Amino acid sequence: MTRSCLAVVLAAGDGTRMKSSKSKVLHPVGNLPMIAHVVGAAQAAAVDALAVVVGRDSDAVAEAANSAVPVSTHMQKERLGTAHAVLAARDDIAKGYDDLLVLFGDTPLVSPQTLKQARASLADGADVVVIGFRPDNPHGYGRLIEEHGELLAIREHRDASEEERKITFCNGGMMAVSGRLALELLDAVENDNAKGEYYLTDIVGIARSRGGRVIAIEASAEEVLGVDTRVGLARVEALWQAAKRHDLMTAGVSMTAPETVFLSHDTLIEADAMIEPNVVFGPGVTIASGAIIKSFSHLEGATVAKGCTVGPFARLRPGADLQDKAKVGNFCEVKNAVLGTGAKVNHLTYVGDADIGAGSNIGAGTVTCNYDGFNKHRTIIGEGAFIGSNSSLVAPVEIGSQAYVASGSVITGNVEGDSLAFGRAQQVNKQGLGRKLRERLQADKQRRQKDET
Amino acid sequence: MTRSCLAVVLAAGDGTRMKSSKSKVLHPVGNLPMIAHVVGAAQAAAVDALAVVVGRDSDAVAEAANSAVPVSTHMQKERLGTAHAVLAARDDIAKGYDDLLVLFGDTPLVSPQTLKQARASLADGADVVVIGFRPDNPHGYGRLIEEHGELLAIREHRDASEEERKITFCNGGMMAVSGRLALELLDAVENDNAKGEYYLTDIVGIARSRGGRVIAIEASAEEVLGVDTRVGLARVEALWQAAKRHDLMTAGVSMTAPETVFLSHDTLIEADAMIEPNVVFGPGVTIASGAIIKSFSHLEGATVAKGCTVGPFARLRPGADLQDKAKVGNFCEVKNAVLGTGAKVNHLTYVGDADIGAGSNIGAGTVTCNYDGFNKHRTIIGEGAFIGSNSSLVAPVEIGSQAYVASGSVITGNVEGDSLAFGRAQQVNKQGLGRKLRERLQADKQRRQKDET
Amino acid sequence: MTRSCLAVVLAAGDGTRMKSSKSKVLHPVGNLPMIAHVVGAAQAAAVDALAVVVGRDSDAVAEAANSAVPVSTHMQKERLGTAHAVLAARDDIAKGYDDLLVLFGDTPLVSPQTLKQARASLADGADVVVIGFRPDNPHGYGRLIEEHGELLAIREHRDASEEERKITFCNGGMMAVSGRLALELLDAVENDNAKGEYYLTDIVGIARSRGGRVIAIEASAEEVLGVDTRVGLARVEALWQAAKRHDLMTAGVSMTAPETVFLSHDTLIEADAMIEPNVVFGPGVTIASGAIIKSFSHLEGATVAKGCTVGPFARLRPGADLQDKAKVGNFCEVKNAVLGTGAKVNHLTYVGDADIGAGSNIGAGTVTCNYDGFNKHRTIIGEGAFIGSNSSLVAPVEIGSQAYVASGSVITGNVEGDSLAFGRAQQVNKQGLGRKLRERLQADKQRRQKDET
Repeated sequence: MTRSCLAVVLAAGDGTRMKSSKSKVLHPVGNLPMIAHVVGAAQAAAVDALAVVVGRDSDAVAEAANSAVPVSTHMQKERLGTAHAVLAARDDIAKGYDDLLVLFGDTPLVSPQTLKQARASLADGADVVVIGFRPDNPHGYGRLIEEHGELLAIREHRDASEEERKITFCNGGMMAVSGRLALELLDAVENDNAKGEYYLTDIVGIARSRGGRVIAIEASAEEVLGVDTRVGLARVEALWQAAKRHDLMTAGVSMTAPETVFLSHDTLIEADAMIEPNVVFGPGVTIASGAIIKSFSHLEGATVAKGCTVGPFARLRPGADLQDKAKVGNFCEVKNAVLGTGAKVNHLTYVGDADIGAGSNIGAGTVTCNYDGFNKHRTIIGEGAFIGSNSSLVAPVEIGSQAYVASGSVITGNVEGDSLAFGRAQQVNKQGLGRKLRERLQADKQRRQKDET
Repeated sequence: MTRSCLAVVLAAGDGTRMKSSKSKVLHPVGNLPMIAHVVGAAQAAAVDALAVVVGRDSDAVAEAANSAVPVSTHMQKERLGTAHAVLAARDDIAKGYDDLLVLFGDTPLVSPQTLKQARASLADGADVVVIGFRPDNPHGYGRLIEEHGELLAIREHRDASEEERKITFCNGGMMAVSGRLALELLDAVENDNAKGEYYLTDIVGIARSRGGRVIAIEASAEEVLGVDTRVGLARVEALWQAAKRHDLMTAGVSMTAPETVFLSHDTLIEADAMIEPNVVFGPGVTIASGAIIKSFSHLEGATVAKGCTVGPFARLRPGADLQDKAKVGNFCEVKNAVLGTGAKVNHLTYVGDADIGAGSNIGAGTVTCNYDGFNKHRTIIGEGAFIGSNSSLVAPVEIGSQAYVASGSVITGNVEGDSLAFGRAQQVNKQGLGRKLRERLQADKQRRQKDET
Repeated sequence: MTRSCLAVVLAAGDGTRMKSSKSKVLHPVGNLPMIAHVVGAAQAAAVDALAVVVGRDSDAVAEAANSAVPVSTHMQKERLGTAHAVLAARDDIAKGYDDLLVLFGDTPLVSPQTLKQARASLADGADVVVIGFRPDNPHGYGRLIEEHGELLAIREHRDASEEERKITFCNGGMMAVSGRLALELLDAVENDNAKGEYYLTDIVGIARSRGGRVIAIEASAEEVLGVDTRVGLARVEALWQAAKRHDLMTAGVSMTAPETVFLSHDTLIEADAMIEPNVVFGPGVTIASGAIIKSFSHLEGATVAKGCTVGPFARLRPGADLQDKAKVGNFCEVKNAVLGTGAKVNHLTYVGDADIGAGSNIGAGTVTCNYDGFNKHRTIIGEGAFIGSNSSLVAPVEIGSQAYVASGSVITGNVEGDSLAFGRAQQVNKQGLGRKLRERLQADKQRRQKDET
């Protein structure tokens, strides 16, 4: 029997140490807002609904959550502790899900496996499941006091005995709670402590005092790593990148220097593709087997088919669609354009809003003039065409298959297949005039220098 | 009462292990010569004058010191030890400053805080203050033998007892000395040792033997790290960069991959600016809040205002001045040019010696032809102008507001506001000639291949 | 007396964990196939011949071995253990070399020094020399059991006693064997073990049982590091790069951020050259003293002479030959071209198949149109020429010394020295038409938007 599940994601922290004008959970890891990582893990653990507790940017956070299941947001007006924050979602909790997960919007590396394990423990009869971890240095963390497989208490560092401080298993913050008991436990939390706050951790003792079963499960230290500062954000990004690179390499992708390759949450690269040092993948990139992405390339929203070569110094922007064995070389930008099989855009070229036929060769310095200041227009080039260097193709324009455009041409009208087109002035040589011009310019320079002194 | 202070900076070492044609202290960290880092720390500790002891490149070292207080240089002709080196500045020391700091030109990470603390100790009555540190592995370092808060001796590793070798507090080399006693102590140093050198460390014993008070203060291991090789220089650079990145992130700057961002000593970035992976900041860059510097950008001497977007693959050179929300895109170079609010230079463009009005759009492949081989000239573009792609703007030239330049034009004369300008040849299509040309070129190729075989 | 030597290189492993379509030993480290690194070390240890045992890609592996001494390949059809693999080269072993080295094609960091030391041990009377190492964690490795300088046994981890497991000296796999005894020892190996394989390590016991002398020598842990996965390949690459960078810096090359500089096996850089962050050296690059390679540069098959400046964002391709003080700037590509002393190619330029005379200045956006779709042609520019920006030089073409080409010209015919050439249309200004065009385009835009809704 499938159990229903609600995940409450706490995302109301002020995040003042971020020194940011936007909510902390909107900051990205792998080009995806942190909150969306947490939501993604929750979804992979088969939650049915999400309740996000926010302090500001309510709409932006809900949108960034990018959830496939229903999301509600709940404003936490006062900050009176974690239990109080969870209760901001009282309406949703009251709907009576079997399982309740309590997650944090600034803890983006939590894995689906851990959440599934927490839910499995609820299904096995636990009433509260605390997600623990083993930090390198447990100093300062709440210790998980266990006996016979049950969690007796979470002992704060300052309250722990010498013996208890030797425990290395610590509270990671996230919890799973029986949905049936959740409100009862949360409502029983009191604030008779130094800060006058309602602590979620108190439900461990409350549940036990009512005969409930509480256990702890272990996550990795990375999974419970929360982000408080931009330094912390960069550290989480580094861990996330390292894991993603490792997964790709293990699946057969070559990276000469993986630590210089930056991936996005949705980057797809097939086995036997080669990624050279210093490549940045923005969102939405797919690379097929046999493709080579050379150094200093920047890709975003692009599809690169088998056997393509990209870079060095190539930029593929959204809508770049390179078909088999197409080539985009140095200082080239391709946007919203299809490059047919074997098409070549090798040097200093801008291809925007274009279809380039199979086997066509676009010369160095060519520009598709796609924008007239108001509208974008399309350039369509047939198969096997040759566009001479430094040409300007003023869109909308069509150039037929096997057509030949002379170097330096400005092409404003269509060119039929097999035709030769040029649009450039006749060369004129003036003998000796180079020397005279040079003398005049040099005299200018001397006069200027004199004027300056 | 303010105490006067002289800093003697030892910079006469041969630096032979650098294998360099220039003095070691001229090598840069964060794009600033090492000597200038030391001078900067001294100035921040309120020194009144600097005496730099050099072995060569006297003028270059004095200039690189880049000091706001008077700097004298003193040539140390023979290398007879550190005390001998300090005495090369005898004339300056004899002027009777209250405090004397002895620093090293190849130890660039020393902090103002440490120097201030050393001076404060002198003010509190110490006669000699040794700056110590705790290395990861103290083997080989001179140990600081302390008792009741006083420094009894600096014991060289080879002379230390088993018990003394357990001491982890070691001599870092730098010192502060009572200016009143300095010459007396230095002149008392003898060279009756294996190498026949005059060691500065001997003044510890001399001061104590005369009833003086000697203490040690602790600096971090980084602060006393000296550079002897290019490997060591790279290590110091890495530490410096890591600290500077950390400071910026803590102040609210986002860096996706801080280890790939390279900063200069004077880089200024406001909170809530975003720096993507792989960005290099040369000297003289200021970035305002809300700006995004995308991957593979290189900036030097540039000002980037609020909300600007730079890169990927952008180069801003000295004098680039981007006003609010201006955009410089891929494979664009901007030098000595103002880009007005919201102006766009998006693709493969060279803008040099220019003023571009607010809201103007410069098409892909545009070049401001600012250099005639002898002189540099200026291009002035009004507000809201549209420069078509692949245009050449031959400076000096002015293009009025709202003017429109057709793609592929060579513009040699001024264009009035609201005018349309073009300077390009008419397109001619020759039906079927593309095919003929192609056949001829292919025949050429075959003939060539035949000739080669 | 010189001893003869055969190296058997085992390269038949399936390498399935690489998930690659090519043999594992063909994957590169420092842009050289792993097998060639092993062969290079063997050659530096003066081997006379190489026998490579392969499982597939026989021809490709033989070619990649890139050996200066004779190479034979031997197909190992069944995989029955390391001794069985070595015996695939029986014919070569039977030729009676003095020394036999057994190496691994996927262990590319082995040093010549270690191989020389192994051979020297054979010359000193050892019959079998095992190359050992000390891993950080010896768990799982075969321990080397020594007594009085002789190797008694290689004890597999699972068979080792508590006491033996404390030994940190472990079997690294490679061996040197007396050529006289090699076949006899190998043929004596049996497969009466769990896996039914013939293990090379068994010759230790066999040799000893026959009164032979077996010793172990120590290599570094890196030298015996084998590659099984792309993650492992990246780790070996990182170690190789770090060592190569260290060697260059020690020899006097400056690197601001060495960890961002990627070198090839044959990269040559002289002392006092400066390499900024983020530079990639493909194969075949030589950099002279005093040259500066700025950030984001990519070089391959290029020669850069004294005092040149390259980058940022420069690409030098094979045949780029920069003579003294030449300059290649941002977004420039140079291929198969000589740049004379002091020549400048500063901005957004493609120079291919060209000779550029000393002191010439090539303006921004210039393109040598070297390809007509079938043939490559050469552009020849004399000394001191000035090529205006955005020019197209349609090869084959010659431009004389001191000639002057106007900006935006298409040059299809030769230009004599001292001449002035231009090939561009006259500029035409249409007053007020810019405004009208703008109005029309804006109307178009509005109509389009209407159509879309």
